[in-house]
Amino acid sequence: MTAPLLSPSRRLRRTPFSDGVEAAGVRAYTVYNHMLLPTVFRSIEEDYQHLKEAVQVWDVACERQVELRGPDAGRLMQMLTPRDLRGMLPGRCAYVPIVDETGGMLNDPVAVKLAEDRWWISIADSDLLYWVKGIVNGWRLDVLVDEPDVSPLAVQGPRAEDLVARVFGEGVRAVRFFRFGRFEFEGRELVVARSGYSKQGGFEIYVEGADIGMPLWHALMEAGADLDVRAGCPNLIERIEGGMLSYGNDMTDDNTPHECWLGRFCDTQSAIGCIGRDALLRVAKEGPVQQIRAIEIDGSAVPTCDRWWPIRAGGQTVGRVSSAAWSPDHGTNVAIGMVRMTHWGPGTELEIAAPDGVRAAAVRAAFWA
Amino acid sequence: MTAPLLSPSRRLRRTPFSDGVEAAGVRAYTVYNHMLLPTVFRSIEEDYQHLKEAVQVWDVACERQVELRGPDAGRLMQMLTPRDLRGMLPGRCAYVPIVDETGGMLNDPVAVKLAEDRWWISIADSDLLYWVKGIVNGWRLDVLVDEPDVSPLAVQGPRAEDLVARVFGEGVRAVRFFRFGRFEFEGRELVVARSGYSKQGGFEIYVEGADIGMPLWHALMEAGADLDVRAGCPNLIERIEGGMLSYGNDMTDDNTPHECWLGRFCDTQSAIGCIGRDALLRVAKEGPVQQIRAIEIDGSAVPTCDRWWPIRAGGQTVGRVSSAAWSPDHGTNVAIGMVRMTHWGPGTELEIAAPDGVRAAAVRAAFWA
Repeated sequence: MTAPLLSPSRRLRRTPFSDGVEAAGVRAYTVYNHMLLPTVFRSIEEDYQHLKEAVQVWDVACERQVELRGPDAGRLMQMLTPRDLRGMLPGRCAYVPIVDETGGMLNDPVAVKLAEDRWWISIADSDLLYWVKGIVNGWRLDVLVDEPDVSPLAVQGPRAEDLVARVFGEGVRAVRFFRFGRFEFEGRELVVARSGYSKQGGFEIYVEGADIGMPLWHALMEAGADLDVRAGCPNLIERIEGGMLSYGNDMTDDNTPHECWLGRFCDTQSAIGCIGRDALLRVAKEGPVQQIRAIEIDGSAVPTCDRWWPIRAGGQTVGRVSSAAWSPDHGTNVAIGMVRMTHWGPGTELEIAAPDGVRAAAVRAAFWA
Repeated sequence: MTAPLLSPSRRLRRTPFSDGVEAAGVRAYTVYNHMLLPTVFRSIEEDYQHLKEAVQVWDVACERQVELRGPDAGRLMQMLTPRDLRGMLPGRCAYVPIVDETGGMLNDPVAVKLAEDRWWISIADSDLLYWVKGIVNGWRLDVLVDEPDVSPLAVQGPRAEDLVARVFGEGVRAVRFFRFGRFEFEGRELVVARSGYSKQGGFEIYVEGADIGMPLWHALMEAGADLDVRAGCPNLIERIEGGMLSYGNDMTDDNTPHECWLGRFCDTQSAIGCIGRDALLRVAKEGPVQQIRAIEIDGSAVPTCDRWWPIRAGGQTVGRVSSAAWSPDHGTNVAIGMVRMTHWGPGTELEIAAPDGVRAAAVRAAFWA
C-alpha cells in the first residue's frame, strides 16, 4: 500500500516544532489530537535502528495537556481514574487509565502532579478536555480546566541522558523514571520528566510557551551533533516490540483497563470517588473475557495494519490484531491483538486474516522488549 | 507546498464507504473525528466545477452521531445549546451551536430530532461525545449517550434530487430543507435529510449499519451514470464561497457563537437551562468585539492556508484569516477571517501576511454564494 496524501489545513494544527520537523525532511504524518504528529523521517526501519543506537528529538506536541487548577483539582483527578493517587507526591508522573461510568477507556494519559492543586494530564488521542469539563460542570467542582500552551518535546534513545544533560545541566541525570524536575532553558524553568513513548530511555520536556520551541529544538540539535542526534518520532516497530499500546489503535472506549492489560494500574477498591468504579469492581472480580496479547505473525513483512485484522481459530473469530509490523531485529512480524480467554494462553496457535491472505500466528508470553 | 503523506493506521478509522472512495481514485484525505475524510479526487478545481454542474456522492461518515436516548434526552439537548428547541418537531434538523460554561464553541453540529426522546447530534470535528457524557454523568440525567453505527453519505449538486429520487423514490422530492423522511433501501428504513455542506443543494443519508454502506454507494453510482455522478467530497473553494464555517479552522473553543456569525442561532433569553447562558447573555447584550467576515484577497492564487494568517491594518494586527482559496468562478481569492470591530465594515482595506508575502485585501459585505 502506498500512503495517501494529507491535505494541510489550520484544523490540523502545526506545532511549535513544525519548522524543525520540516527542515529535517519529515516524510509522513499522522493526525493526533487535531495536530500533526510525524511518523517517518528516513524510513520506519532506518528510524528504528537509529532510535536504538543513538538519540532522537521527537515533536510530540500532540500530547496536549489538560490542566487542572484549583482547590478541587486533586478530588477531580481521583474521580477520573481507578488508580489510587492518594500517595502521589508533587514531582511525580503516573500512567492513569481514564474510564467512563461503565469502565470503558476514554484515554490513557500520564498525569503530572505539579502541586497539590495543579495537575497536567498529558493525553492520548481523544478530546479528554471535553469529558473533564463536562464532569466539572455537572459536579460543580471548584477547579479551572483548560489546554495550556505546553508542548512536549521528547528526547529518546540510549544517548538521551547525555544530550539532555548538555542542554539542561548535569542535574537531569538524577531524575528517576516517571519523576520530573524543573530545569532552566533561556531563563525559563521547564518541567523535564524521565519518560517517553519508547523503551530506549529518555526524557520529555514540557515546553511551556510556543516561542521557545524552535530555540530549544536548535539547542538540542547543536548540542547533540557528535552524538548523531536526529529528528525522530514514535516508531511503529519499536513500540510494538515494547508492548506500548496506542489509544484508538489497540483499545477504544469499548475496552476496560483490564482488557488492555492495565489492571495493575487499577486500585478499584481504594480509588474512592472514581467514576466507573462500580463497573470496574465487577470486572476486577470476574476478570476480563478478552485481553491484549503480544502476537507473532508468520511469513514475510505484513502490509500496513490500517484496520482490525480478525484473529481466527478453529473456524471461529477469537480476537483482532490492531497493530503489526515487521521487526528487523527479531526477524518476524510483531503484533498487538485482543484475544478471547479461550485462546490467550502463551503458544496458542492462531490464524490472522491479513489483507494479503491468511497467516499462521501464535500468542507470546510477553512482548519482545 | 506539496502535500505530505498520511500514515494509515486503525486509529484513523476507515468508513463503510472507503472501498468506494479508493476505487474512485481519491487523491488526498484529511482526518476528521478520528476518521478518514476525502479532500480531493481529480483536483480541487475540477471537483469544484463538477460539484456545481452535476452531482457527487460524498463519504462524510466522519460526521459521527452522538445519540441521546431516554426520558431526559430533550432536556439534555436544550442544556447543550443556546438555540431554543422548544418548538422543534420530530422530523426536523437544526444547526445548533454547542457551548461550554463560558459560551465558547465546543462544536457546531446539526441536531436531528428522531422522536421526543431520541436525537442524533451530527458532529463537526471534536469529541462532543465526551462533553455530553460528562454532563450526563455530573447532572445524573436519565439518558443513554453513545456513538451508533450511523454513517452519513451526502449527495450534493444540482442533480442531487434526481439521483436520490431514483434510488429512494419520488417521495424524497417533497422533503424540505433541513427536514427528513424515512425511505427504504434494501428493506431498511433510512433517515434521508435535505441538507449538506455545500450550497449546491442535496441530501444526507444517515446510513444505519455499515454493511449497507457499499451497496448504497454502488446503487447511487449505477443510478446516476447518465447524470455524470462522481465520487466527491466537501470542496474547499465552494465552502468558502458559500461562507460555510469549519470548526477547528474558522472557529475554536475560544470563540463565542456571536463571533462566528451564529448569533441568529442563539435564543439566549429563552433557552432556559442552557449551559453557558449567563456568559452568552452578556455577549448578546454587548455584542462581540471581533467577528467572522468574508474577505477578498488580491493577487494570484494563495498558497494552502495551513495556519492562521495575520490580518493587519495601520501597522496593527486586527484579525486572522483561517481559510482561503483561489476561486475560478469569481476570479479572486476567497477567504474567511475573524476581524476586529474597528475594521470589519464592508470595504475596509486590510493587509494579509500570507506565507508568500503581504497582500492587499478587503472586507466584503457578504459571502459569494
